[in-house]
Amino acid sequence: MRWSQLYVPTLREDPADADAVSHRLLVRGGFVRQLMAGHYSLLPLAVRVRAKIVDVIREEMTAIGAQEFVLPAMHPAEVWQRTGRWEVMGEEMFRLKDRKGADMALGMTHEEIFTVLSQELRSYRDLPQLWYQFQTKFRDEARPKSGLLRVREFTMKDSYSFDAADEGLDHSFDLHRGAYERIFERLGLPAIAVQASSGSMGGSASVEFMSPSDAGEDLVVRCLGCGYAANTEKATSALAAVTDGPGLDMPERFDTPDARTIDELARLHCVPAERQIKTLVYVVDDQLTLVLLRGDHSLVEQKLIDTLAATAVRPATAEEIQAALGASPGSLGAVGVTGLPILADEALRGRTDMTTGANTDGVHLRGLSVERDIAVQRWADLREVVSGEPCPACGEPLEVVVTIEVGHIFKLGRKYTETLGVTVLGPDGDRVVPTMGSYGIGVERAMASIVETHHDEKGIVWPVSVAPFEVAVVALGVTDATVAEAAEDLYRQLRAERVDVLLDDRNERPGVKFSDVELVGIPYRITVGARGLAEGTVEVTTRATGETQLVPVAQAVEHVRKLLTAAA
Amino acid sequence: MRWSQLYVPTLREDPADADAVSHRLLVRGGFVRQLMAGHYSLLPLAVRVRAKIVDVIREEMTAIGAQEFVLPAMHPAEVWQRTGRWEVMGEEMFRLKDRKGADMALGMTHEEIFTVLSQELRSYRDLPQLWYQFQTKFRDEARPKSGLLRVREFTMKDSYSFDAADEGLDHSFDLHRGAYERIFERLGLPAIAVQASSGSMGGSASVEFMSPSDAGEDLVVRCLGCGYAANTEKATSALAAVTDGPGLDMPERFDTPDARTIDELARLHCVPAERQIKTLVYVVDDQLTLVLLRGDHSLVEQKLIDTLAATAVRPATAEEIQAALGASPGSLGAVGVTGLPILADEALRGRTDMTTGANTDGVHLRGLSVERDIAVQRWADLREVVSGEPCPACGEPLEVVVTIEVGHIFKLGRKYTETLGVTVLGPDGDRVVPTMGSYGIGVERAMASIVETHHDEKGIVWPVSVAPFEVAVVALGVTDATVAEAAEDLYRQLRAERVDVLLDDRNERPGVKFSDVELVGIPYRITVGARGLAEGTVEVTTRATGETQLVPVAQAVEHVRKLLTAAA
Repeated sequence: MRWSQLYVPTLREDPADADAVSHRLLVRGGFVRQLMAGHYSLLPLAVRVRAKIVDVIREEMTAIGAQEFVLPAMHPAEVWQRTGRWEVMGEEMFRLKDRKGADMALGMTHEEIFTVLSQELRSYRDLPQLWYQFQTKFRDEARPKSGLLRVREFTMKDSYSFDAADEGLDHSFDLHRGAYERIFERLGLPAIAVQASSGSMGGSASVEFMSPSDAGEDLVVRCLGCGYAANTEKATSALAAVTDGPGLDMPERFDTPDARTIDELARLHCVPAERQIKTLVYVVDDQLTLVLLRGDHSLVEQKLIDTLAATAVRPATAEEIQAALGASPGSLGAVGVTGLPILADEALRGRTDMTTGANTDGVHLRGLSVERDIAVQRWADLREVVSGEPCPACGEPLEVVVTIEVGHIFKLGRKYTETLGVTVLGPDGDRVVPTMGSYGIGVERAMASIVETHHDEKGIVWPVSVAPFEVAVVALGVTDATVAEAAEDLYRQLRAERVDVLLDDRNERPGVKFSDVELVGIPYRITVGARGLAEGTVEVTTRATGETQLVPVAQAVEHVRKLLTAAA
Repeated sequence: MRWSQLYVPTLREDPADADAVSHRLLVRGGFVRQLMAGHYSLLPLAVRVRAKIVDVIREEMTAIGAQEFVLPAMHPAEVWQRTGRWEVMGEEMFRLKDRKGADMALGMTHEEIFTVLSQELRSYRDLPQLWYQFQTKFRDEARPKSGLLRVREFTMKDSYSFDAADEGLDHSFDLHRGAYERIFERLGLPAIAVQASSGSMGGSASVEFMSPSDAGEDLVVRCLGCGYAANTEKATSALAAVTDGPGLDMPERFDTPDARTIDELARLHCVPAERQIKTLVYVVDDQLTLVLLRGDHSLVEQKLIDTLAATAVRPATAEEIQAALGASPGSLGAVGVTGLPILADEALRGRTDMTTGANTDGVHLRGLSVERDIAVQRWADLREVVSGEPCPACGEPLEVVVTIEVGHIFKLGRKYTETLGVTVLGPDGDRVVPTMGSYGIGVERAMASIVETHHDEKGIVWPVSVAPFEVAVVALGVTDATVAEAAEDLYRQLRAERVDVLLDDRNERPGVKFSDVELVGIPYRITVGARGLAEGTVEVTTRATGETQLVPVAQAVEHVRKLLTAAA
């Protein structure tokens, strides 16, 4: 390809609204343009990168025996209603009516629709099946942001496995886990595999692949000692034990008119946060519920959802709290409360000599023993892990990392096949309900995440595997026939060697050409100039290191080929 | 690929609801399944065919210098409102609201959105640009039917050209016309290039590519003598002149209580249809309008739309007609009518001694001279050409063919760039509004149209260029180790030669294997059986001809390679 015939509208200035590095560089590099919030047009350079990412994913899917489908993006509401997700998906699902008034959904994911196709499977002998597609997903995100990282319309590689037995699902799941690890490695995307919550998917287990980035929105807890890693929605830690005094025979009220927060109580009444009980009031699927944590701990709402298998949770309003407990936040507690479910975090188990609100404004209780004085209905891990807490596996300090989710794999089990009536003939002649897995990678998010990892102050530094072009031949002074011919010749030779090469044949100043090649992130640059040619040399520059070597013209192609092979 | 690992749910019976051959065979062959009316899932074989069609199109687009984009499928209403097509597209456009209540459209086509991108073009030196994409289009068809031929969701290759001057547009249009001819030839799709109406696209010229098929819905008029071809929406013919008598000095009323149709008037009152005037009443963008044709001619509504540059036309209701003319259909006429627009077909020009309704039920007028007695406001070509009429170019008899539209190219002009405010710096320093072309091929429709052309009573007969596999190696009796090994060996050799080969390694009866390979349409079959192997031979069968040759095992690969080369 010749740059003069390629549409690459690079910009000298950062776009005003770009928060994430990838957003900034993909816009400046002429890869993408926003049509409206959450919807991007991919320009020719981005289409090339996307195609390479798709090829890598397709190869790895083929390698594990998966077969490619393409299913509709528009779905009849009826199928989603049958699995209950027409309601569960809430505002995140785009919905519309057709000209006959029938309800339609735009696919956010395709569990339902692939399961419909699986209804045609006859026998356990037809299993396992690994089916995948590259298809547009539509999600009405509340806050689309960060360029391609959080959008309302994107390409997803989604796959689905169907197995007769649980061990089959384990195998399909492991195949995908391996494929995903290879995919992210080939894409140059560091991805931490973490245990995660299954959320609205349901199912028994899920692993997320999280790529560290400041532009991320997900926190991952990991241990550099033993490799333990989990999403904060799932992560736990081995807390240092707290030595408690015996406490009092019964809780004692004391006035705290000046203390409405954990901090104030700690500061003004000398009660360390770890000796306090934090009492939160939540509405869990319409049921007012008390949630207790240690004073210095924070609740992870997803843990609450997962513990109670809830559809929706929200903090109660001040009015709801006043009506139920007769006090305001700041003086709440669970001592003596009956008639409301009480959940307590495991870190409170067995604690004594604790302090909590008395359900009278400006009054607290001290000296209480949690298990003696509070009618806890359920103990669960509800707290958020923070940096430095000991690893639950090996005890080393944990690290909390900001990440982007770049892949997610689920063991779904039989939820969808059961609801949609899928059975196959089993080995014993009985009908068997297949068990499913579901596996996804967002293609454009992967593209942006690669940029988050691979960039410098000059622009993008694409890994060779996904670069829009592997090599740029930059002719300095195209009006000089010697230069133009030498550049053309290198371009022809590299094409003949099947190198993905871009010839910068524009009549532009060297500075413009260099900064464009750097901005769009082409891994290797061959610079062809009159001065070098006079001595029979060209320059070969490696984008990642900035290193430049003088190479005899006749050896340039071979030199670059070796660099490409080494990088592959 | 091994058949045992490929999901191809072939059916022994025709699906009950399939009208078109392609629908029947693509379902029976396990290529597609319907999710709901107008929305199909593509199964692995169809995905392979689709990928090959996409590759052919992409190669030809690249060859004319077009660049690949991917634009959003969901669009803000606002852009469509600015070009007026938010209204024009009517019920065919899927519309929805996002969670904030903003109006969105699902893209039926992308003139608006590509034009938005073109706003960034700066100078005539940036032109021409040929931009294309493969993207899902959504169209809320009133009657989705015929499998993949008329659907509500499909992949389209759509391209758009931007040129500074009209000659540039002519050139971009011609480039596309050439590319389309090559694409359809490579796909094995006979496509008649015809002049067509531009419809809701607007613009000055358009050419449709029409593939003959009984499942088609479009009529094309063509001359085998000189190659003249046009859609019936545009086609005309050289009519034989009619010799008229002088007629009467003024029209004369006569009673026709028994004659309410052209036929009845001809039969009962001896007035040949060609001497009658057919008076139609239409509502054209809210304006009641009389449309006059010769009694034996039919109206082409699109010609009416094009003549009047109308947005919508419909026949008037009986009530509207009664209110305007005081009579019922069967006795209508335009003599003496004032205050309503009157359009007449060119075939009525200069005619005398004609008969028409008198706007009194059961009464007609005879002896009238069209131009003397009727206040025709506008003459136009409005009639439908029928088979056998003389070609307007050479006079040979015309043929009317039922076809499927497989491609459509438009000269759009400046409608979209002007409305959306696109200008570039012109060569003289003035601002210039670029002129556009728009060009489309429906990918899945092309797939189905190929099947319409290439099939026989046994199933599909794919052209090699788009076949899901080029060669099937069919092992007869896979439990026989000699057979299995010989088949595996051929499979390995063919793969090493980069032949796209499917190994039928299923433990099935020969009859099942043969009929499956024939049904799914693989061009060449190598049959490996114990009896042949004993004599050192395999059979090579050509799907299109049914011809089978005995070939020595050692020469089989070379033999098939030659057949493939000859077919390419």
